[in-house]
Amino acid sequence: MSLPSHTDASAAAADPSLVADLAIANHILYDQHVVDAFGHVSVRHDKRPDHFLLARSMAPALVTPADIITFDLDGTPIDAGDRKVYLERFIHGEIYRARPDVVAVVHSHSHAVIPFGAIRSYKLRAIFHMGGFIGTDTPVFEIRECVGDGSDLLISNNELGAALAKSLGPKSAVLMRGHGATVVGGTLPEAVYRGIYLDVNARLQLQTIGLGAVNYLTEAESQATTATNAGQIGRAWEMWKTQAEARR
Amino acid sequence: MSLPSHTDASAAAADPSLVADLAIANHILYDQHVVDAFGHVSVRHDKRPDHFLLARSMAPALVTPADIITFDLDGTPIDAGDRKVYLERFIHGEIYRARPDVVAVVHSHSHAVIPFGAIRSYKLRAIFHMGGFIGTDTPVFEIRECVGDGSDLLISNNELGAALAKSLGPKSAVLMRGHGATVVGGTLPEAVYRGIYLDVNARLQLQTIGLGAVNYLTEAESQATTATNAGQIGRAWEMWKTQAEARR
Amino acid sequence: MSLPSHTDASAAAADPSLVADLAIANHILYDQHVVDAFGHVSVRHDKRPDHFLLARSMAPALVTPADIITFDLDGTPIDAGDRKVYLERFIHGEIYRARPDVVAVVHSHSHAVIPFGAIRSYKLRAIFHMGGFIGTDTPVFEIRECVGDGSDLLISNNELGAALAKSLGPKSAVLMRGHGATVVGGTLPEAVYRGIYLDVNARLQLQTIGLGAVNYLTEAESQATTATNAGQIGRAWEMWKTQAEARR
Amino acid sequence: MSLPSHTDASAAAADPSLVADLAIANHILYDQHVVDAFGHVSVRHDKRPDHFLLARSMAPALVTPADIITFDLDGTPIDAGDRKVYLERFIHGEIYRARPDVVAVVHSHSHAVIPFGAIRSYKLRAIFHMGGFIGTDTPVFEIRECVGDGSDLLISNNELGAALAKSLGPKSAVLMRGHGATVVGGTLPEAVYRGIYLDVNARLQLQTIGLGAVNYLTEAESQATTATNAGQIGRAWEMWKTQAEARR
Repeated sequence: MSLPSHTDASAAAADPSLVADLAIANHILYDQHVVDAFGHVSVRHDKRPDHFLLARSMAPALVTPADIITFDLDGTPIDAGDRKVYLERFIHGEIYRARPDVVAVVHSHSHAVIPFGAIRSYKLRAIFHMGGFIGTDTPVFEIRECVGDGSDLLISNNELGAALAKSLGPKSAVLMRGHGATVVGGTLPEAVYRGIYLDVNARLQLQTIGLGAVNYLTEAESQATTATNAGQIGRAWEMWKTQAEARR
Repeated sequence: MSLPSHTDASAAAADPSLVADLAIANHILYDQHVVDAFGHVSVRHDKRPDHFLLARSMAPALVTPADIITFDLDGTPIDAGDRKVYLERFIHGEIYRARPDVVAVVHSHSHAVIPFGAIRSYKLRAIFHMGGFIGTDTPVFEIRECVGDGSDLLISNNELGAALAKSLGPKSAVLMRGHGATVVGGTLPEAVYRGIYLDVNARLQLQTIGLGAVNYLTEAESQATTATNAGQIGRAWEMWKTQAEARR
Repeated sequence: MSLPSHTDASAAAADPSLVADLAIANHILYDQHVVDAFGHVSVRHDKRPDHFLLARSMAPALVTPADIITFDLDGTPIDAGDRKVYLERFIHGEIYRARPDVVAVVHSHSHAVIPFGAIRSYKLRAIFHMGGFIGTDTPVFEIRECVGDGSDLLISNNELGAALAKSLGPKSAVLMRGHGATVVGGTLPEAVYRGIYLDVNARLQLQTIGLGAVNYLTEAESQATTATNAGQIGRAWEMWKTQAEARR
Repeated sequence: MSLPSHTDASAAAADPSLVADLAIANHILYDQHVVDAFGHVSVRHDKRPDHFLLARSMAPALVTPADIITFDLDGTPIDAGDRKVYLERFIHGEIYRARPDVVAVVHSHSHAVIPFGAIRSYKLRAIFHMGGFIGTDTPVFEIRECVGDGSDLLISNNELGAALAKSLGPKSAVLMRGHGATVVGGTLPEAVYRGIYLDVNARLQLQTIGLGAVNYLTEAESQATTATNAGQIGRAWEMWKTQAEARR
């Protein structure tokens, strides 16, 4: 079966509840201090795996369902009209292309992850069970290896998006030197959960480094905690949603 | 006198004000950043010391009295119906079994305690009078000593609960490597107080380590401050309750 | 002129606006994270310099003018009725006795001051102009020098209050090992200001120690900034008051 | 063409929307924790480049358009009436005089910048793209080099303002030892953005120093990120404004 062409997009509109959840995901990530005025979250289109949903260029805290735009995997907007789109939409498209298992992507500049992108002496890794998805190390994407010195650090085209996706590999998170991090999930709540706990785990690790030898989670413990936590994310999503909407 | 059988549970319902206080304790622990979407607090049944009260599996911030379930010390729910229960209810049951003096238990992943579970170079101990109940050291439970590598770190059965209770011994708190902490109290407000100040004391200790020799509380000072503070907890409970309910 | 006897206290009631300001000072100190459920603030009686005003034993956030009690300098309540009084009222009385220039006293366990009470390797001192009142060092009161090991660390009688006042000497602040700090001011807003910025300055100093040689304020700069800031405190008081009352 | 004299000021009133934006800038800087009761923000007059707009001496959180006063570059108020003016208005006037490209100035005591003013061992520099405007070092103004020991650290006359402007040079930010920082922008939102991210970048750098060699932004990356970010500031301004006004 061939996929419908772009001009048929209106015939395959995304599930309105998915669009609504994506707006909520934006609010949660702001309320939980993962994004500020910058950063974004996307979800793969539920009917068109070669498309994804992402807000127009705006602050996540203010996103409504009407602000959600559909993009193809090249980052070309299908239904943007005259709305401005994020400079870094290529992060999302290229990760969806490289990772068929990925259903949602969060890109942020959350504070505790920045140190781990700027140093080589310590790897960001799981220090408690909530960060089990991080495993025993996190790759760091160095944009200078792609374009040399003098870039604006942004993933502003498909080539850079593909390079970032390659750096991510099969992992749940990739750090971006001098910039931030990108995390992925098999569901939208899972990606939101990972965006939140990537930062928490990084903060805890920063507090622990320097106190002595650190007893991190092993690879086996990381896998076991990730599997168990997957069944608990709904509990967190409901709470985060309630709090974020109450504080809007 | 023999205890009534499980089928008589409805004949010995817990005091409604205790159930209401347990819902409030959940809100306080969230409001004071001891728990987030995860973590839980229980209280021993006021008429059945072989039973305890604990919310169904949900975020503490959202708990109401209708969400409270009665469990026996094996962690078997008496009146759960089709409601989902916490994976780690065995923490509570086994501590109530091992420690007849304990009336309430708080389990959390509060941030400042995680470093002290991950290192062996420093013990979590009382650095100011509000943390006197911590004394001069805090045991660390290492789940690998029970089940080896590859667990999900959770206290998901009675054997692990009993091992944790053994690690706790006669103390007020036990750290859980890569996971969090569990604190106990002789009253519900005391356990809540200890959950809050375990984290505060840990944070203060993290800020002080590395600045030079630290003049901690002695064992005698820890005991004296604990005795004095026991008479002051009501003042804090009223304030925490007022604030937590106002911010819901 | 002889002072009226205690039984005449009702004939010399404190200015209601002073009582109202003391309730507001309680709210500000809570809102600015200087006190939590514990800690207290007093003001010298405006008509009776041998008396002072202090709330009954309760959380500062909840204090209203009706909760304010008059005490003599021995810490004996004049008009408490059956209301419970703070265990540490002797901090206030003995400082008012020793320091005729002092009009208000704040006692807190604010977090950033605790490390400086627990170590001898660094002195708490002014690192920016807002902390100029701290000067080039801060005394640390060690209760073990008065009562040996095993105390509950509290200033629970006049002898301990006098020892603390002696440790304070002519300074604006004294640290209390394993306990907290006490600051004084020539006006109620000044004492509140100092309670707030003692903690801020301590936090900034904690962030700076270890980065290299620190260029602190000199004694002359401390004095000059203190003199200038005295004229600016009203601006802060109005803002703190507005915010604290809005968030109640 | 000669500029109108001061007595003509009423004939060249500033654009009311600029005045309104300056009030909002005050609220944003408070809401984002850049200023507390102290600190100030100004904007160059839109019709009179030799004048600037600044609030009367008050807490930024409480500023309304009616509180905005016009000053000439000497810091002389044109329309203050009997309203009190900021002691440090000379920061603004002298920078506008020295830097024709500057349209707005923020002066703050934001917490994370204080350490970098007190030490010489590390320079405040860009650690992530949002702080690109900081470049590879930040000058530190040492008031002792102008007036010796014993000052109140404030920029309280034109000579000190000119010395600060000289220390700033062509940069976006200057640290002030024992005091705070001053940042400039080509628009009011840009200066606000820089006030916020100067502090965030400083905090991130404090968390990273000591972990190993730090891979900072290069000069070329600083310039490229600054150019790109200039086009994104409107997005942040709208969000900050919405949040600050909602929380007033």
